[in-house]
Amino acid sequence: MRVEQIKTPALLVDLDAMEANLRDMAAFFAPRKCKLRPHFKNHKVPMLAHKQIRAGAIGMTCATIREAEILVENGIASILIANEIAGEEKPERLAELARHAQVMVGVDNRSALCDLARAQRNRNAQIEILVDVNIGLNRCGVDSSEAALYLARYAVASGLAVRGLMGYDGHLQGMTPSPEKDKTVSVGSRMLVETAAQFEAAGIPASIVSTGGTGTYAISGDYPGITEIQAGSYLLMDDIYVARGASFQRSLTVLATVISTRGTEHAVLDCGVKAISGERGLPALKDVPGAKLTALHAEHALIEIDPESSPGLKPGQKVQVWVHYSDATVNLNSCMYGVRNGQLEEIFPIEH
Amino acid sequence: MRVEQIKTPALLVDLDAMEANLRDMAAFFAPRKCKLRPHFKNHKVPMLAHKQIRAGAIGMTCATIREAEILVENGIASILIANEIAGEEKPERLAELARHAQVMVGVDNRSALCDLARAQRNRNAQIEILVDVNIGLNRCGVDSSEAALYLARYAVASGLAVRGLMGYDGHLQGMTPSPEKDKTVSVGSRMLVETAAQFEAAGIPASIVSTGGTGTYAISGDYPGITEIQAGSYLLMDDIYVARGASFQRSLTVLATVISTRGTEHAVLDCGVKAISGERGLPALKDVPGAKLTALHAEHALIEIDPESSPGLKPGQKVQVWVHYSDATVNLNSCMYGVRNGQLEEIFPIEH
Repeated sequence: MRVEQIKTPALLVDLDAMEANLRDMAAFFAPRKCKLRPHFKNHKVPMLAHKQIRAGAIGMTCATIREAEILVENGIASILIANEIAGEEKPERLAELARHAQVMVGVDNRSALCDLARAQRNRNAQIEILVDVNIGLNRCGVDSSEAALYLARYAVASGLAVRGLMGYDGHLQGMTPSPEKDKTVSVGSRMLVETAAQFEAAGIPASIVSTGGTGTYAISGDYPGITEIQAGSYLLMDDIYVARGASFQRSLTVLATVISTRGTEHAVLDCGVKAISGERGLPALKDVPGAKLTALHAEHALIEIDPESSPGLKPGQKVQVWVHYSDATVNLNSCMYGVRNGQLEEIFPIEH
Repeated sequence: MRVEQIKTPALLVDLDAMEANLRDMAAFFAPRKCKLRPHFKNHKVPMLAHKQIRAGAIGMTCATIREAEILVENGIASILIANEIAGEEKPERLAELARHAQVMVGVDNRSALCDLARAQRNRNAQIEILVDVNIGLNRCGVDSSEAALYLARYAVASGLAVRGLMGYDGHLQGMTPSPEKDKTVSVGSRMLVETAAQFEAAGIPASIVSTGGTGTYAISGDYPGITEIQAGSYLLMDDIYVARGASFQRSLTVLATVISTRGTEHAVLDCGVKAISGERGLPALKDVPGAKLTALHAEHALIEIDPESSPGLKPGQKVQVWVHYSDATVNLNSCMYGVRNGQLEEIFPIEH
């Protein structure tokens, strides 16, 4: 089937680009002690998680208990929920999962620790935790080594299994590569590694020290004592990351149909914010010279055309739009169409 | 089941507010010649479409062929796709639908007309169209009565059944009520009605003249010659519309759990742009004095708290966030939880 025959709007993944990204990241980690535990939230495709593990990843990272359940259902044996969970229901689901696979979870507060300890008792399970440390993103995480150590001691006393630490430097992912970036990223890695040393000195296990993303893996992955990297975007790649100097290839586009034109300067596509995210700005057209996407409505993309430099667009014509923010765009779709040389090769169901 | 026991993030609909909106809109149209054909894209819930029809709506409006298929599968007998479709595949699906229900579609270009005529012949179906007129939104639609008449003649010659006209004034929905607004909205309605008269004079049927939304229904609904209004948002109501003086009640919130706090000034909820849209700005917290939602990440909402005026937030606590943009938020969820007096009463599956 030719790409143009896929019904629109459709999320396409360029298999050559995606496979090159998979290989390049695997080649980085192969000779290193530090390993990759890629983030599942960027693609939500169990088949891709298995490709990542076959390429050397030691397990998967995810953001929610639902994603952890999907991974366990699909036979992934080691999972990190790099996020906090709290309340009644989710700790119970986590404890249930912990009976079937290794599922670690981030913790940054005593209240959540109590929830986890209670669920663990209720289900007769062993929950494993990483203490989440704020290394500058100012989202989740405790603010100091002392607070981390206090929480770790409390976790041990509550019967939870402390495995180590995590910290996510989301605020540094988009920084352009520079010596300044190396230094700033290393500050976060050092805080994690030094806190891990304090854990060990206090007799608390810290065999896992997890951090990093697609914009920082090469720095933290070489920082002595960091044992795992959580990068996820590298596989499909956001247009945003590419613009900031990342070395991976963009693989994701949304295929759309031109449904309307007004004169020679305006066209409308059948893809809006229900098919492609505009949460981080407007996406760009792929290979449509002289044309620009200027607005996303719920079900429409508005295109402005410069008739001087463009061959124009016609109703019925197929156009591809680069995915700007893959995480939120994947979430809008039920499958990803794997394409190569203009042909549909494979369909990847996206799990929700 | 109490609301706080629903797993988070969850899309809640306040049944009292929603039912009041349903009644108020029905009361407006009951004594009038002009009728309501509510938009399905705002809720995507067949059960709610049936409630709207029981309350007097003459059928449903929708934005995509997929939505039309869902409506036909759920027994809705009269549907307007208030949008253009083009290419090969969608006209074929439309022709297939037209064998089972009345499904009208907007048309604004000859190329799409040819696609529809071909599909109609292939399936031995009768496709009904409304000529789409640009009444100022500058998205889809022909730009003049002459162009509309030309297209209508071409449609008749192609064997398509012309039923009338449509035009959507999306750019006026958010205008604050004023005599100026009445005048501006009436200009669009007049263009549609005058073009319909030209159709009739040329022997082309124009029994349907469709326009309007939640921000303009009361003006166009009273304009002589307008036969149908496409309003959809009124049922669930966006926070955006309410801020602009609409008379319906907000009914939608996302229930979330506090998963982390840092000091007394920061908290994090387990709902990000994968659960609530931020495409039109940041949503507001419901009934959380002294606290403000300041950012949406993929799976997190960041909250800033003023300790002086707030009782604070604790991990595990449940919080509701007003839905700012219901259309895109409904699209992120698999169901809507109908709540009344703090209790879960009904679950509405959302169709995708």
